[in-house]
Amino acid sequence: MLAIGVDIGGTKIAAGAVDEDGRILASTRRRTPATDVPLILEAVADAVEELSRDREIGAVGVGAAGFVGADRSTIVFAANLAWRDCPFGAQLAERIGLPVVVENDANAAGWAEFRFGAARGARDMMMLTVGTGLGGALVLDGRLVRGSAGFAGEVAHMNVVPEGQWCGCGRRGCLEQYTSGRALVRMARHRALAADPLLSPLLEEAGGVPKEIDGPTITRLAQQGDPGCAALLAELGRWLGFGAASIAAVLDPEVFVIGGGVGDAGELLLAPARDSFAASLVARGHRPLAPFVRASTGDRAGMIGAADLARSEP
Amino acid sequence: MLAIGVDIGGTKIAAGAVDEDGRILASTRRRTPATDVPLILEAVADAVEELSRDREIGAVGVGAAGFVGADRSTIVFAANLAWRDCPFGAQLAERIGLPVVVENDANAAGWAEFRFGAARGARDMMMLTVGTGLGGALVLDGRLVRGSAGFAGEVAHMNVVPEGQWCGCGRRGCLEQYTSGRALVRMARHRALAADPLLSPLLEEAGGVPKEIDGPTITRLAQQGDPGCAALLAELGRWLGFGAASIAAVLDPEVFVIGGGVGDAGELLLAPARDSFAASLVARGHRPLAPFVRASTGDRAGMIGAADLARSEP
Amino acid sequence: MLAIGVDIGGTKIAAGAVDEDGRILASTRRRTPATDVPLILEAVADAVEELSRDREIGAVGVGAAGFVGADRSTIVFAANLAWRDCPFGAQLAERIGLPVVVENDANAAGWAEFRFGAARGARDMMMLTVGTGLGGALVLDGRLVRGSAGFAGEVAHMNVVPEGQWCGCGRRGCLEQYTSGRALVRMARHRALAADPLLSPLLEEAGGVPKEIDGPTITRLAQQGDPGCAALLAELGRWLGFGAASIAAVLDPEVFVIGGGVGDAGELLLAPARDSFAASLVARGHRPLAPFVRASTGDRAGMIGAADLARSEP
Amino acid sequence: MLAIGVDIGGTKIAAGAVDEDGRILASTRRRTPATDVPLILEAVADAVEELSRDREIGAVGVGAAGFVGADRSTIVFAANLAWRDCPFGAQLAERIGLPVVVENDANAAGWAEFRFGAARGARDMMMLTVGTGLGGALVLDGRLVRGSAGFAGEVAHMNVVPEGQWCGCGRRGCLEQYTSGRALVRMARHRALAADPLLSPLLEEAGGVPKEIDGPTITRLAQQGDPGCAALLAELGRWLGFGAASIAAVLDPEVFVIGGGVGDAGELLLAPARDSFAASLVARGHRPLAPFVRASTGDRAGMIGAADLARSEP
Repeated sequence: MLAIGVDIGGTKIAAGAVDEDGRILASTRRRTPATDVPLILEAVADAVEELSRDREIGAVGVGAAGFVGADRSTIVFAANLAWRDCPFGAQLAERIGLPVVVENDANAAGWAEFRFGAARGARDMMMLTVGTGLGGALVLDGRLVRGSAGFAGEVAHMNVVPEGQWCGCGRRGCLEQYTSGRALVRMARHRALAADPLLSPLLEEAGGVPKEIDGPTITRLAQQGDPGCAALLAELGRWLGFGAASIAAVLDPEVFVIGGGVGDAGELLLAPARDSFAASLVARGHRPLAPFVRASTGDRAGMIGAADLARSEP
Repeated sequence: MLAIGVDIGGTKIAAGAVDEDGRILASTRRRTPATDVPLILEAVADAVEELSRDREIGAVGVGAAGFVGADRSTIVFAANLAWRDCPFGAQLAERIGLPVVVENDANAAGWAEFRFGAARGARDMMMLTVGTGLGGALVLDGRLVRGSAGFAGEVAHMNVVPEGQWCGCGRRGCLEQYTSGRALVRMARHRALAADPLLSPLLEEAGGVPKEIDGPTITRLAQQGDPGCAALLAELGRWLGFGAASIAAVLDPEVFVIGGGVGDAGELLLAPARDSFAASLVARGHRPLAPFVRASTGDRAGMIGAADLARSEP
Repeated sequence: MLAIGVDIGGTKIAAGAVDEDGRILASTRRRTPATDVPLILEAVADAVEELSRDREIGAVGVGAAGFVGADRSTIVFAANLAWRDCPFGAQLAERIGLPVVVENDANAAGWAEFRFGAARGARDMMMLTVGTGLGGALVLDGRLVRGSAGFAGEVAHMNVVPEGQWCGCGRRGCLEQYTSGRALVRMARHRALAADPLLSPLLEEAGGVPKEIDGPTITRLAQQGDPGCAALLAELGRWLGFGAASIAAVLDPEVFVIGGGVGDAGELLLAPARDSFAASLVARGHRPLAPFVRASTGDRAGMIGAADLARSEP
Repeated sequence: MLAIGVDIGGTKIAAGAVDEDGRILASTRRRTPATDVPLILEAVADAVEELSRDREIGAVGVGAAGFVGADRSTIVFAANLAWRDCPFGAQLAERIGLPVVVENDANAAGWAEFRFGAARGARDMMMLTVGTGLGGALVLDGRLVRGSAGFAGEVAHMNVVPEGQWCGCGRRGCLEQYTSGRALVRMARHRALAADPLLSPLLEEAGGVPKEIDGPTITRLAQQGDPGCAALLAELGRWLGFGAASIAAVLDPEVFVIGGGVGDAGELLLAPARDSFAASLVARGHRPLAPFVRASTGDRAGMIGAADLARSEP
């Protein structure tokens, strides 16, 4: 059975017809009309119709940033898009005449890694997506954990530093403020401001202006061997491993999959994360250390995972 | 079908024949010969045989402090008892001729609360046992979460304070160092030492000697209305709610069940825990707040839960 | 002997002729031409000349935000004004033909409190100015402590939370990020964002928009008895007392003087500061507790103190 | 003029006749009768009389662990000796017929470094004595800072980690819990317990028993190139530099002198301290970095400093 996966991002909507092996047979995209939910619904319906024209489609899965209710239809709220308590799934189902499930986008991407990617063959998995923010997806015993209200997997808002950095969620010390693309850039800009000599090459690259420092430049310099930029990624990795150790204390997952744009820094991020995880994990020496592996499904993980969840957990 | 539940504690072994409704039909106990595993095995076997004499027993569940392997037989290590990588379940099964499963004692107690106690009827549950230390048990979708190596539920060793109080596990800042009976007494003794005027009545009760302060006295005075002792329990509760909020960010459980000897302080602990949980939880205002309820199964929760796990998840 | 005190702020320059008892006999003001040091010098010179016309002036003291060198002439750098390593005092002296000393503005204000205000009669004093930021001035044995490079008194940048809130200085966890007007407003906005029910009245006052919350409104509501706003000021006070306790461990000053716009909240800030100071101070019970008193010299403390320092410590 | 310096330690009393250049012309020692103040007074008087027999002595300075009052006579309290609010100086003066001043032992040692040792020629100095605990002595403008109650210099009890390690003073997060011999050993034992592979050589040296790890072994192995032990000292050094940066924010001293038994590890401690100081100091890049130098006066610093303070600040 084919299913369509739709990934609604802040700027574009990507949709694809996905088969049972996670292969994308056809895909299309639309701009995201961010300010208006009916327009988003129209754009998604339009994309679904395009992909349904020549194929038998059994279900549609939608991945969206934000908190998705336990009904797998309602988008409760989101930081960057217009919806509040919006029964998007039910509306879309009515509009297109197909069964629809809505999932948090990090959950959808995590599911793709679990089924077809880096965690294929595992039974438990924690995926941590280090992009601009920090996303999480949890699979236990082969099932995606959604939580009682649908809000599971929000590792971004575990508290790691009491009285720490304020978070956009209104509380302080959230893990996302210590390990995410935003945290990386903020750390770099402040250290440059404080005249950290290790960051001279990065600052120079940014024309001497701390505010001009951006994430891709940090990763690029680090990959070219710049020790200051490598140290920034290593600090991000340390926090990632530190947070993962608290997760492992409670959940003891088999494997950690690291995705997202910052995750593309690869071993520059993962090696310090593993060290920090080992140092921070209870009963080290008496237990296997869960491996940290890079996500392998790429940009289209959200689309693939959403489609597969719609098909396999209707 | 009847099952026997065995709870191996630091000083005594309690065993009971438990029916499918969690009722104890008969029980017995032995001293724990803590220094010698073969002697523990003999004592458990002896207790099982006594309870099996007049009854048809289908299975035996053993709850033990310590890390229990994913095979539900091996006790990997424990802080207070003599075993290291000991295949206790297999040895006991051979000795008594009945199927045996071994479970972590906090998991066993949590399961009893889930099936027969405070969380009956829920689908998800996190139990936090605030005794001398801090125990945890996690049920998701009606199933006990054991983790890939069998080590799930160790909430005691989530990190809540980077560079915080050293823990017996060899790392610093573990939640158990902030919310447990040991943490309560340590806090009281230090504040008394620092001449905190709020603690004068407690210090007087201890004969003016900070080292003589103990936990039950704190709870008793708090229940009698002493504001200093109430403040100590409130601080413990705040950490409990703070840790629970990080758990909820990842797992979004339906209910928190609070057990253990310190948990007996009831609302003196639970009310501040709820406040702190609400203040520390992401997306408050957009989600239901998981209730905090007291465990209701009592001292015999470990025995009942171990028996039921042996029966229902053989 | 009369001296002129000049207070260079971000928006205006205030100058006054001050006698030996700290009385202002005449005063004038100019706009601060923030972007251009020669223009600032002209404006100051002009104000000095106006005040010198009918009086015998012995010295000029200039208080300026920023780091002032040990030569008491060079403004090394400042966050909000244009100078970097600028020999302002020497230039002004040459321009006006009078002896000039330059002081950090918080030092100048602190000196006024020590000589003529809340700490008159004390031998040691620590002044903490809780305005938009946090300033400090230290007097030991009757002398203003300037430090080996002229940078003493920067209590704003004591670290109080490792891995805490990033500071404009490029490091994290500085006291100023926890106790200052900016910290107050940030805390209020985030808590409102997190739907803290205690902050509903404040949020309503701000038209329901967290970003519209400002400091004066918080103080006003707190003074009218609003518990949420009082709690915000109390938290600021707790950090103030906590920081002061670390200062007292090292310096053991006789008195703390609290100034600045947030300091105007009075006991709403000072009472929790005293409690926190007592709870955080080593050897409490074996030592007198330094009192926390409000600054009494008002807006013109910087002008008066600068004049007096120029006269008494030429 | 000759003065006698007396250093009252937990196990022995050392006394010496000291000339104006800080040279010890003669010395003697007694056991410390720790439980009985009159016996301590007798022992000190006896030592003073021995040294006075053949010499003209102008004054006696006594250095003692503990909080010494502003009268420079009263020992207010001490952790390890029997006195509480004891007018030791006055009693001794009456007994021996010579002027006596009592000083905190860290202050006395710091004064010796300032006058005759590593800080000779400086105007300001902060000495940090990293022994079993952490001591401090502060000199500003050539004068020892004693504080309003006599309690200045207690850097041990600056708070560096809110909610951190409990301290013997009854509060948590004191600097001494992060940088002192006791902190070093505790860290080593816990990390060994947590099976940190870097600490295998150290653990082996301690016979495989974490509790047998001691400080001198750590320093010895570190000096022999063991990376695990070097890392332990480096972490101590990082906290030392971190605490020093907060001190420098307030006081801006010219030089930091590092003494004490752990200080003997030299660059293994000092190099990371310097790095951490530079990274943690406000306005780095706009100010000179105070050097960190080792104390040079040795074991007898307390004796020499006490004598000199009695002579030069009677």
